[in-house]
Amino acid sequence: MATIKEIADRLGVSVSTVSKGLNGASDISESLRQAVLDTAVEMGYSTKRSRKEEHRKLCLLIENMDYDAPDKFGYDIVLGFRQNAYKNKWDVDIVDATPALQAADKYDTYLLKNGYCGAFMVGFALEDEWMNQLPTTTMPTVLLDNFVERNPNICYVGTDSHEGIELAVLHLLQLGHKKIAFLNGSEGSLVSDQRQEAFESAMKKAGLPLNKNLMAHGYYVADSAKYHVPGFLDEGATAIVCGNDLLAQGAMEVCSEKGLRCPQDISIVGFDDIEIAQTLNPPLTTIRQERNELGRCAYVMLNSLIHHIPISKTLMRPQLIERSSTAKVALK
Amino acid sequence: MATIKEIADRLGVSVSTVSKGLNGASDISESLRQAVLDTAVEMGYSTKRSRKEEHRKLCLLIENMDYDAPDKFGYDIVLGFRQNAYKNKWDVDIVDATPALQAADKYDTYLLKNGYCGAFMVGFALEDEWMNQLPTTTMPTVLLDNFVERNPNICYVGTDSHEGIELAVLHLLQLGHKKIAFLNGSEGSLVSDQRQEAFESAMKKAGLPLNKNLMAHGYYVADSAKYHVPGFLDEGATAIVCGNDLLAQGAMEVCSEKGLRCPQDISIVGFDDIEIAQTLNPPLTTIRQERNELGRCAYVMLNSLIHHIPISKTLMRPQLIERSSTAKVALK
Repeated sequence: MATIKEIADRLGVSVSTVSKGLNGASDISESLRQAVLDTAVEMGYSTKRSRKEEHRKLCLLIENMDYDAPDKFGYDIVLGFRQNAYKNKWDVDIVDATPALQAADKYDTYLLKNGYCGAFMVGFALEDEWMNQLPTTTMPTVLLDNFVERNPNICYVGTDSHEGIELAVLHLLQLGHKKIAFLNGSEGSLVSDQRQEAFESAMKKAGLPLNKNLMAHGYYVADSAKYHVPGFLDEGATAIVCGNDLLAQGAMEVCSEKGLRCPQDISIVGFDDIEIAQTLNPPLTTIRQERNELGRCAYVMLNSLIHHIPISKTLMRPQLIERSSTAKVALK
Repeated sequence: MATIKEIADRLGVSVSTVSKGLNGASDISESLRQAVLDTAVEMGYSTKRSRKEEHRKLCLLIENMDYDAPDKFGYDIVLGFRQNAYKNKWDVDIVDATPALQAADKYDTYLLKNGYCGAFMVGFALEDEWMNQLPTTTMPTVLLDNFVERNPNICYVGTDSHEGIELAVLHLLQLGHKKIAFLNGSEGSLVSDQRQEAFESAMKKAGLPLNKNLMAHGYYVADSAKYHVPGFLDEGATAIVCGNDLLAQGAMEVCSEKGLRCPQDISIVGFDDIEIAQTLNPPLTTIRQERNELGRCAYVMLNSLIHHIPISKTLMRPQLIERSSTAKVALK
């Protein structure tokens, strides 16, 4: 890890200039300050400075996730993280990590210059600029639903998708369903891949054939259902497992338009248990993610990384919430 | 969750008798106390009582693992767990969970009658009596290197075996090795299975063929090496990845007896980084498990379970420690 002296030597400036640059003093130019920060990051200085106990500031970076109201997926995650961080005397800034922000500064530079000891990143996709910088970051970083290999500064936090989908399939099997369709979310995301694998493995375990016409990837929005659910119904599906509650809501609408009653004619299972799950007609059977706990857990993991405990992955248990959108398969 | 009243009704005794039984009062008979405890456990009472904050006592159950000296695998794990628990004002009892102890009481009964709020279990094997009771336990339990499906009271803590074996194989590939053998530990354990899968996947990723004569399961002791290493050498292995440091020590001895020099003629990689790794001749390149941090992390997870945060799995990052038992492949 580089010292202030080494950064000064590299730049050919004095130690006090580097110190001013790192501490945001006003009496050096912005361009020199930027050079100090960039060099400090390049030389791995960030870790040393930002892990000092006097800088008690964390950052919650949000890219593509709704969190501004209690009925939104991200609300409880953000809340849980802040609750646990505040309890442990950390300040938390919530930052919308727009593409423009990600383009303006490198990830490490952004955290360093704002005095953050670490970050919790939610809603990021693989194509995000800052995601590409994570394999080499020196900043303690917890990622929701994404994994980065071999960097001890990064921890992946999420719900055990495998167990979640397995719970959904087992529930439907117990109700006598065999023609079970799977409407997954966006292709290419880590959790979609895990859920796909889990669905196929649960069907195989039950001795049921995998039918390509009963599996599809949509996006994690209700509207996606209309492109795939009619095909499932044509194929004789009696139950549909959905990648999230919004997809399940969409699936319900499509089935209703086709004159099918849920759950008498078709059983539907969601994933997440966001607020709308309870208010749908019928109320949705779903796989619950404990989102407040997920946020609280993310804080615990970030604090561990800051204290050099190299946790790589933490998964939470999902839970089957039985409501009224699933029932015994109808005899034909 | 059952109340004291419900337990009393079930047994046909008074509430105060149940209360005495649960609290270890001396003025009821041992057989009645046992009946109260068994009924309480059966009715799911344990959770309610033992999670109260006034009972600040945890249990570290050790089955088959050496931990009594700093050079033993379990020493730092036990130390880390105790350090973190004490810091947070918990008492910890270390208990040798002999088969006799496991036969004498059910797992939940044992914890309940000794006033433990939860347990950290290390060294247990799938055939252990208490392991079989875990799918339905109501006691917060953290398991080292073992996973139990769908019980929110259980959390699996371990090192990411996949990444560990991948680090070992990548290191050897960079040194030009292609004929890489894998001497795995005991067949049928969760970590052995994970490491086997990781080895095969890393070889495939590198475009190298999987050769059955270059893969074997031994046990996690040095002596195992002599049954498998000669076969690897006959097959032309230039490097051996071992399931732990003891196997690597054994492999070194076998190679030396065959007149091969390590690392000039054969590269050897261990797993764990226990104390002997540094003192072997040559000092062993190995995949380090952060055992103190593993123990500390187990405490954090147990505390989370006690507070109803249903963490299912936590993995730590392994680290490649390069010493002198690996070198560039010899040109033939």
